[in-house]
Amino acid sequence: MTSTVNMGEAPPVKEHLLIAYGRDLPQWLIDETQAKFPEAELSILQLPNFAPIPAEIARKTTLLVTFSNLPAPEDASKIKIIHSLSSGLDHLLSHPIVKETSIPLTSSSGIHGPPIAEWTIMNWLVASRRFVYTHENQQKHNWAKNIDFMNTIHDQVGRKVGILGYGSIGRQIGRVASALGMQVHAYTASPRPTPSSRKDNGYIVPGTGDRDGTIPVSWHHGTDKASIHEFLSLGLDHLVIALPLTPQTTRMLGTEEFEILSRGVSAERPRPYLTNISRGKVLDQDALIEALKGGVLGGAALDVADPEPLPENSPLWEAPNVQISPHVSSAGREYIPRSLDIMRENVGRLERGEELLNGFKRGKGY
Amino acid sequence: MTSTVNMGEAPPVKEHLLIAYGRDLPQWLIDETQAKFPEAELSILQLPNFAPIPAEIARKTTLLVTFSNLPAPEDASKIKIIHSLSSGLDHLLSHPIVKETSIPLTSSSGIHGPPIAEWTIMNWLVASRRFVYTHENQQKHNWAKNIDFMNTIHDQVGRKVGILGYGSIGRQIGRVASALGMQVHAYTASPRPTPSSRKDNGYIVPGTGDRDGTIPVSWHHGTDKASIHEFLSLGLDHLVIALPLTPQTTRMLGTEEFEILSRGVSAERPRPYLTNISRGKVLDQDALIEALKGGVLGGAALDVADPEPLPENSPLWEAPNVQISPHVSSAGREYIPRSLDIMRENVGRLERGEELLNGFKRGKGY
Repeated sequence: MTSTVNMGEAPPVKEHLLIAYGRDLPQWLIDETQAKFPEAELSILQLPNFAPIPAEIARKTTLLVTFSNLPAPEDASKIKIIHSLSSGLDHLLSHPIVKETSIPLTSSSGIHGPPIAEWTIMNWLVASRRFVYTHENQQKHNWAKNIDFMNTIHDQVGRKVGILGYGSIGRQIGRVASALGMQVHAYTASPRPTPSSRKDNGYIVPGTGDRDGTIPVSWHHGTDKASIHEFLSLGLDHLVIALPLTPQTTRMLGTEEFEILSRGVSAERPRPYLTNISRGKVLDQDALIEALKGGVLGGAALDVADPEPLPENSPLWEAPNVQISPHVSSAGREYIPRSLDIMRENVGRLERGEELLNGFKRGKGY
Repeated sequence: MTSTVNMGEAPPVKEHLLIAYGRDLPQWLIDETQAKFPEAELSILQLPNFAPIPAEIARKTTLLVTFSNLPAPEDASKIKIIHSLSSGLDHLLSHPIVKETSIPLTSSSGIHGPPIAEWTIMNWLVASRRFVYTHENQQKHNWAKNIDFMNTIHDQVGRKVGILGYGSIGRQIGRVASALGMQVHAYTASPRPTPSSRKDNGYIVPGTGDRDGTIPVSWHHGTDKASIHEFLSLGLDHLVIALPLTPQTTRMLGTEEFEILSRGVSAERPRPYLTNISRGKVLDQDALIEALKGGVLGGAALDVADPEPLPENSPLWEAPNVQISPHVSSAGREYIPRSLDIMRENVGRLERGEELLNGFKRGKGY
């Protein structure tokens, strides 16, 4: 039997999209991905972290999506773009394919805002509105008394939140906080004195964020202790840590900082509430436990710990008013689909010769 | 000993503010109240619900704040205004002081938006982000796996919420939902075709709400079954019941309505989530339990039940994916202070001869 071909017409070049990932993908996600790239042939390859992509698969791939799996440069001649499922690219930058080729490399920066903002707001409200007590009463089939809540819970209207690191995550937290009636104070490493310097030029999930940076009522900046201390003295009811972990930010917050934060808030208000969605090492965890025990801080929501996984015998698990989750604030069914939205947009931009979203600029180090 | 008086000058008329309430007030609240009315003499009177205010106290009162305690008309000659701590005034309207005097009567309508919106958003996020599972893992000192969350939780971006009753509460829910990236669909009894008809002209807690009614992407109305059914068919991921209980709204939602709601949402999305912050009798509770058991609805957050208190043996406590609280969604330390803000504003308006906020119009029945 001979195969039938269109006479006189070259078949269109078919894209081959490879997702190289540490886990199997559920069928709904495969279906959704195929629907996003209807004309592409789709391969899913389950590989251990940092395992290389086998040559035979790499050679037919035109579009590559991965967390940490890359091919050898000599097998990548058809690859038009490599899109990382993570927001940072640091873990990929020493690979030969980055150093020896000019294949565009893009990140998923910007997709974490909505889930992490939801995680943050959920934790604030669970703490301030006594959800755990409510849940325990439901388990006991007990209709609790109004007076158990009337004088013991408070709402967020008029409260001040300071956001250390006003990037895509901080901005979505700011957006929701503002809708709740809160005052948002932004902190960045570099000064943002002009409207254009306050813009977010990266990918933003549609309908979220603060692209123009108009939500904060005040902006602050600096990388020195004095600038941070000044920010912590603003009278903040909430402090959100949304900074990257760098040598400068390691152990940036400890006993002294927690005390400055607490002194800023007048005695009749609840003690400040700390939210950490950055990395555990950004603060002194023992000092945090002491600040919670001593009532210097009113509570803390922590999606990160030092170390991770947090050992079973860590005293952090039982520190007063602490809510801990296992580094999952960005997780959810939308994670990969949203990252693929960036990829899809960039495939169009490549075809049109436009600048890519979240593109890595070789030689600039970010 | 004789008393000293200012010679030749009449002393200024000192206001006498009486708070007649079913409970003792904590000292911080008394202090805060005195600070709001620095020139008034303040009395706090603890009385059972609907007990009359004793003549001797009523006769010296100029400003009265109460839930349900009123004086006889003949003892009210000095009272300039009666402010109710509740949002409705129905329970007071048959009292002689309303029927036989013209003392202005005002309600606390509008103060419930922020706490009830926080309660609503908290419940959505607790359900969609698996907070109870997270909490249980913390109790066990167990750092759960990312995969336990990645494919089982979802966020709210792009999801549709239908708000039955777009008053001060519905508007603040809409405001926060919109900040989360959701689409808001409003439903009211009467048509709201023009910008001015969509305004909220009552008291609004500063920095909250949707005064101009610009947040909804669509408006719907009607009091008949067909109009409600059309609204329920919009493909709503969330339905919020924020309607008053009236003969028309009693048992408005039952088996048929839950099925229409569910059919509107395509199969790959989670089943619709119901939020009731109105009254238990607005829906058929047995039908709700069946809809939850049958997977017609994905979950429900209920601050109200039928009856209240919900009996210990009610099957509602254990219905799948239900979160119950004991009619406390509006509770919190801000409740009375916020109500007193309306009173303070109205004392100024009275002096200036201006129309009162939330004033009851005798003869109009509301």
